[in-house]
Amino acid sequence: MALPLAGLLVIDLGQIYAGPYCTFLMAMAGADIVKVEPPRTGENLRGRSSHGEPLPFVLLNRNKRAVSLNLKDPRGRDLLIALARRADVLVENFAPGVLDRLGCGWRVLQAANPRLVYGSSTGYGLTGPKRDLLAMDLTVQAMSGVMSVTGFPEHPPVKAGPAFCDFAAGVHLFAGVLAALYERERTGLGRLVEVSMLEATLPTLSSNLAAWHASGGKAPPRTGNHHGSLAEAPYNVYPAADGHIAVICVTDGHWHALCRAMGQPQLAGDPRFADRPARVTNIAVLDETISAWTSAWPRDALIAHLNAHAVPCAPVRDLVEVINDPHLHERGALAWTAHPKLGNIIRLGSAIRFDEAGEPPPTASPAVGEHNREVLGGWLGLSNSEIDALSREGVI
Amino acid sequence: MALPLAGLLVIDLGQIYAGPYCTFLMAMAGADIVKVEPPRTGENLRGRSSHGEPLPFVLLNRNKRAVSLNLKDPRGRDLLIALARRADVLVENFAPGVLDRLGCGWRVLQAANPRLVYGSSTGYGLTGPKRDLLAMDLTVQAMSGVMSVTGFPEHPPVKAGPAFCDFAAGVHLFAGVLAALYERERTGLGRLVEVSMLEATLPTLSSNLAAWHASGGKAPPRTGNHHGSLAEAPYNVYPAADGHIAVICVTDGHWHALCRAMGQPQLAGDPRFADRPARVTNIAVLDETISAWTSAWPRDALIAHLNAHAVPCAPVRDLVEVINDPHLHERGALAWTAHPKLGNIIRLGSAIRFDEAGEPPPTASPAVGEHNREVLGGWLGLSNSEIDALSREGVI
Repeated sequence: MALPLAGLLVIDLGQIYAGPYCTFLMAMAGADIVKVEPPRTGENLRGRSSHGEPLPFVLLNRNKRAVSLNLKDPRGRDLLIALARRADVLVENFAPGVLDRLGCGWRVLQAANPRLVYGSSTGYGLTGPKRDLLAMDLTVQAMSGVMSVTGFPEHPPVKAGPAFCDFAAGVHLFAGVLAALYERERTGLGRLVEVSMLEATLPTLSSNLAAWHASGGKAPPRTGNHHGSLAEAPYNVYPAADGHIAVICVTDGHWHALCRAMGQPQLAGDPRFADRPARVTNIAVLDETISAWTSAWPRDALIAHLNAHAVPCAPVRDLVEVINDPHLHERGALAWTAHPKLGNIIRLGSAIRFDEAGEPPPTASPAVGEHNREVLGGWLGLSNSEIDALSREGVI
Repeated sequence: MALPLAGLLVIDLGQIYAGPYCTFLMAMAGADIVKVEPPRTGENLRGRSSHGEPLPFVLLNRNKRAVSLNLKDPRGRDLLIALARRADVLVENFAPGVLDRLGCGWRVLQAANPRLVYGSSTGYGLTGPKRDLLAMDLTVQAMSGVMSVTGFPEHPPVKAGPAFCDFAAGVHLFAGVLAALYERERTGLGRLVEVSMLEATLPTLSSNLAAWHASGGKAPPRTGNHHGSLAEAPYNVYPAADGHIAVICVTDGHWHALCRAMGQPQLAGDPRFADRPARVTNIAVLDETISAWTSAWPRDALIAHLNAHAVPCAPVRDLVEVINDPHLHERGALAWTAHPKLGNIIRLGSAIRFDEAGEPPPTASPAVGEHNREVLGGWLGLSNSEIDALSREGVI
């Protein structure tokens, strides 16, 4: 079977994570991505390495072609509009109004191509009093309340280690663009779709919002590795002799299985731990009891033993273990690959799998403007001498 | 304009967060969602409150109808297959193989309705050696390496406070289902689409993976509120007199603006802080300098001052502040609503906005089987007496 987005033409003005992750997922689903960047320097993320290809750039921008356009030059702007006439989708994650001020915002592009779907990702959205505040993953983690509920209650607020707000915005935008494309099959018309990083983050706080509600409106505290609203117990990270494990019991059955695994089946009948509310009330002694048992075991033996008893658990792995996980390599979620500048690195696959379709054959992340001739010539019919002149004059 | 998924019929076997969030986003985009649950108890998340409607359930299941089906009874299974004949999409987040064992897995449903798009979200995917391990948000945070890079280096590993792995899986599945629907417009055929929570989490670790690469293959440490690979500085949470703020300087221009805001413009010319690599090298003295300045200010005055200087920043807000944010209410991302059992609660909007289309008028989250008559009668033509008999016999 072919990939579902085969033949879809996408202009990608994305930078750093949210926009490029959106178009990465599109590329993995078969779309043809043309990454548009400022001449010479390219997008911001390239600047994190001296040769313009830090690992995150390489991970997120494979299977894309690259064109350089100086959008501050009217000729660059007009080339973008010409490309948009040919495209199905344009994705950007500039601050609100940037492309409008350059004369190539949504209204201009919609007039040029009514079938275009235009996807915008911003920190706080295209409207509202916070619209023009600068926003990145770190500040959205602060603004959204994520930091206030991450970490241990006795320590200061701390961010989630991964840049998950950036990526949440990217995948929400991907979904929004696809919904508009699906609709276009009926209406023949594109749309503006917009995603705010802050709003893409809010639903992830559902458990914490339950704690707000249960407390009669108090700000939920940081709960360390406990559940965000203490809805379940056991739900924690426990010490092993040589590391840590996470254990979660969603049902009484899971708890009974843990009691058997610990060789203490009588705990299942202990009234302090009889049901979920009782276990939550007695969470301190529950955690002590489990820790006393886990701390004597090596981590991996503990996990094997708990898995054999069907107790939901996982080792707390570091990223070297993750990168080398045979499961992820067998599924193609990770693959080793040799990069001319970065050496032996990993390649990421898409988390979205289309049964039997696989992924497109991998191609390397492009250099700035690497496909200027191919795209400006192929899509727009510019001659080599026109392209050379535009390059000399800094337009591309 | 209408909503883009108007007319789309979706069967939702989702439970807790990943599945229900996927179909919540579909409902907000206009789809008709029929939530299928076990008779009487309903899905697992209901069990967190005595009346079957804890706040997260109410937030994620509005604008859906509910049907009860006992899939372990062959008549319940056959009713699911009959519903799937009428539907465009079926979404489930059971463990791999659960529906296959009940006789209503992908192959059976595909044979019944070749146009059906079938979306599966699991912890580790439908293949590979980890396929059958039990997985929830907490254990995926452990397994993926998220905990290993969250928190302060001097403290133990800790999870991200929000259940972001669950929600990442849900929105990736939404996108995957939409890609398959878009393809179906050309092929006439549905597909199996699958998402693994672990794989939906991996890309969010891109910055941390850069640290792995830069160190020659070492496991990245926890960096507290610093960037995951120390690619940027300032990038941290700083103390205010009455709270904390997050500040991030992506460009030298941001740093120069911060120097001016601090009333210390000469710092911009200080060779210790001249460019990004220098600032990262001297991050300890850089952070001390900034903290000495921020700690004398009240948080909100500090934010107003830094915003006026165009320094990217945000207050570290708690969830009471977030819930009351006028920006989020003005945009409809949050709204106050009276719930018969839960009192005055908030309602969440979708982070995906379709210009000019708004959201469907809000309807309450349904009781278990609330729409049995409407759906089993309307879609399948069952009579009231047939429905009553199925109910008496525990099939619905």
